[in-house]
Amino acid sequence: MNKLKLMAVVALALILGGCCGTAATYGPIETVVPTRPAGQEDMVGYAAPAMDSVRVGFIGLGMRGPGAVSRFVHIPNTRIVALCDLRPERVESAQRILAKAGVPAAAEYSGSEDAWKELCEREDIDLVYIATDWKHHAEMGVYAMEHGKHAAIEVPSAMTLDEIWDLINTSERTRKHCMQLENCVYDFFEMNTLNMAQQGLFGEVLHVEGSYIHNLHDFWGAYWNDWRMDYNRHFRGDVYATHGMGPACQLLDMHRGDRMTTLVAMDTKAVTGPAYIESVTGEKVEDFQNGDHTMTMIRTAKGKTIHIQHDVMNPRPYSRMYQLTGTKGFANKYPFAGYALESDQIETDAVPNHENLSGHSFMNREQQRALTERYMHPIIREVGAMAREVGGHGGMDFIMDYRLVYCLLNGLPLDMDVYDLAEWCCLAPLTALSLENGSAPVAVPDFTRGGWQKIDGYRHAYAQ
Amino acid sequence: MNKLKLMAVVALALILGGCCGTAATYGPIETVVPTRPAGQEDMVGYAAPAMDSVRVGFIGLGMRGPGAVSRFVHIPNTRIVALCDLRPERVESAQRILAKAGVPAAAEYSGSEDAWKELCEREDIDLVYIATDWKHHAEMGVYAMEHGKHAAIEVPSAMTLDEIWDLINTSERTRKHCMQLENCVYDFFEMNTLNMAQQGLFGEVLHVEGSYIHNLHDFWGAYWNDWRMDYNRHFRGDVYATHGMGPACQLLDMHRGDRMTTLVAMDTKAVTGPAYIESVTGEKVEDFQNGDHTMTMIRTAKGKTIHIQHDVMNPRPYSRMYQLTGTKGFANKYPFAGYALESDQIETDAVPNHENLSGHSFMNREQQRALTERYMHPIIREVGAMAREVGGHGGMDFIMDYRLVYCLLNGLPLDMDVYDLAEWCCLAPLTALSLENGSAPVAVPDFTRGGWQKIDGYRHAYAQ
Repeated sequence: MNKLKLMAVVALALILGGCCGTAATYGPIETVVPTRPAGQEDMVGYAAPAMDSVRVGFIGLGMRGPGAVSRFVHIPNTRIVALCDLRPERVESAQRILAKAGVPAAAEYSGSEDAWKELCEREDIDLVYIATDWKHHAEMGVYAMEHGKHAAIEVPSAMTLDEIWDLINTSERTRKHCMQLENCVYDFFEMNTLNMAQQGLFGEVLHVEGSYIHNLHDFWGAYWNDWRMDYNRHFRGDVYATHGMGPACQLLDMHRGDRMTTLVAMDTKAVTGPAYIESVTGEKVEDFQNGDHTMTMIRTAKGKTIHIQHDVMNPRPYSRMYQLTGTKGFANKYPFAGYALESDQIETDAVPNHENLSGHSFMNREQQRALTERYMHPIIREVGAMAREVGGHGGMDFIMDYRLVYCLLNGLPLDMDVYDLAEWCCLAPLTALSLENGSAPVAVPDFTRGGWQKIDGYRHAYAQ
Repeated sequence: MNKLKLMAVVALALILGGCCGTAATYGPIETVVPTRPAGQEDMVGYAAPAMDSVRVGFIGLGMRGPGAVSRFVHIPNTRIVALCDLRPERVESAQRILAKAGVPAAAEYSGSEDAWKELCEREDIDLVYIATDWKHHAEMGVYAMEHGKHAAIEVPSAMTLDEIWDLINTSERTRKHCMQLENCVYDFFEMNTLNMAQQGLFGEVLHVEGSYIHNLHDFWGAYWNDWRMDYNRHFRGDVYATHGMGPACQLLDMHRGDRMTTLVAMDTKAVTGPAYIESVTGEKVEDFQNGDHTMTMIRTAKGKTIHIQHDVMNPRPYSRMYQLTGTKGFANKYPFAGYALESDQIETDAVPNHENLSGHSFMNREQQRALTERYMHPIIREVGAMAREVGGHGGMDFIMDYRLVYCLLNGLPLDMDVYDLAEWCCLAPLTALSLENGSAPVAVPDFTRGGWQKIDGYRHAYAQ
């Protein structure tokens, strides 16, 4: 009957140079979690003292920086003190944004690879806002904090575990905020849906999805020194995961009562990247690392799952997926935004025709409008209209900057802390580790080093 | 600089009772592939001799069986010879379908657990059509073939590797077809899109997705002896993967030039299943096995990937996902059916306004209609209208039965062979193996045992 026996394949955890012989289960690959230095505390729930104004220095004025400068001139109680870019013409261009807005000119840093350090060393800056290429993000964030500044760093803020732990240790030691500038958690559908989830509308949220699916064919030529294609050429794994991870992790209360424990990744071969390089330069790249399509699955301590995808190569409609499955409802943003809810989730005054609701189908437009109006996130209600006016990816960039300043001014914990940064960025190194080992499971470190259950549920902070 | 060293976790393949010590990489869990008995050949491309008519016996007349009987009375050159169900009233009910259609009454088998064997033992049957619960599928298929009949078996046709290898070995030894009744490969969008893919419209297809996302809340009570909830209660893993796997595997030419090599699975905890049981019976189930949501990633020998999901518990709109990503285009069926194509993929006479096409967005309705008309699958063109009329999940069930009979009558290879059955069903046992080992990678056996490169590309067979 049982004529087919399974071959048992048993994983033995062998620390390099060590030895053992009796482990019996297939364990995940583990990475070293550095011991927290004595006297250093975690930053969970940390708030810096309130301040009257936020003085900002910007580093990186190529693609994302100028938009940030444009938005900050609209935020009260901020002052743009200094501007830095390797190329002086980018600094001049940003100065013109200030002039046009009628605010004072900023100090200029440019022309050398180290110019940004001088900006960080100034005494009259509270916040360094970093929008350079990925490769310099973490180094600049560390330097800014070490010189007494809060750091706000574009995505992904760190590409390696060394960089991640450096940022965490520096933030913990210096008691400075280190926030990743993840804008997609502030998009309207995501914010309103998060509010619905926090009010229990979807029951227990069990599974969430997110992605960065964006055909960059028309953008490759625009990156300084071709750094982005170059990065994809040399690194395997989901190197740009934060737009999907951010909203997913907020829905699941990551390090506010739950945490990621294991991830596994799988990718396709690389086809479109090397074909692009050959079409532009004639070079035949044989060892292009980043697969056209990369998938990651993540499990949490509480038995929930996250699914993340990355594809910047193929001709697909833009998608961050953004999907949640709960025991009482379902939300999905792409290719169109919709909700499905058990009818018992809806009170009669909230949504018209609730008798027609069924978890089997999306609610209609009228129902969705009523639902969205009722569950509009308080932050959207407060600044949504202004955000749409100022713009920046439809408004979400402005809400991000506004909230950063709001929390700093009021002495509140920021919406995203250094552990969010770590959790959302760790996919780059950890998916590579999984892929290079045949899609082996990889343990996700507890970046809070013990603090992930101190806070029960993710919430935005508000002044009284 | 490199102050964080990785702990190396090394997997050693230990065959039970054996020993070794030098393996250095993290290998997948492997299962035993039984040696093919001497003198036995594979069934790749196999065709049975043509026949003048197909005489059918049906086993299982509960949920899916009566619909099949209703469809077969519309298919020329078939004769329904025998009907079998454990419950005599189901057989009587099926007889009334025959009477209403004006075809002769069939022999009846009922009333005992072994009645189906007598049906299989008749001399005047060519094909046994099996639509019982999952647990009896494989045993019945084996018995039918051993008694000289072709076997058509509802999904999933096999739940364990033992059952899968039994079906393969029996089919190879008896030279009888063993086809899984996977209807979803015959749905209209899937067929037309497969035709587009085979014509190269999407470039190289790199990644495909499929799923069974269907809230069964309202169906649980309808299964005989509660067998389906019972199965979910006792088995972890994607126990119902074939509706997603079928269309995905046809797009990727599985065992027609490529094959699956590795899979990894991850699931959420079980919440809704045990809650349902408690709500109905009051029983608190502590060890419910099947997670609410299960994901699987699969990689092929040619570096392509498949993503499969299973969720029959939560309130979500029905979805089989059905998505493909190619180097030149993209298709997605749920929540709405759409295509995105590079404009250079479209000739000017095929699609109006092709200048407006962009891989960044879905083509409009008019373009899609024109594309579908041009690339309509020959089988849809032939029997699509009749299929819609006869019905059965909108027509796809009829096309499935029609093609089964067409190929048997004409002495052609069937659209799905026993290796398709194996590949689509192996997710149940292999995902369980992965899940029970912390989402470890699991090697997918070559079910053809060497024959997967004999045919270059999946194609339907046609008579001259």
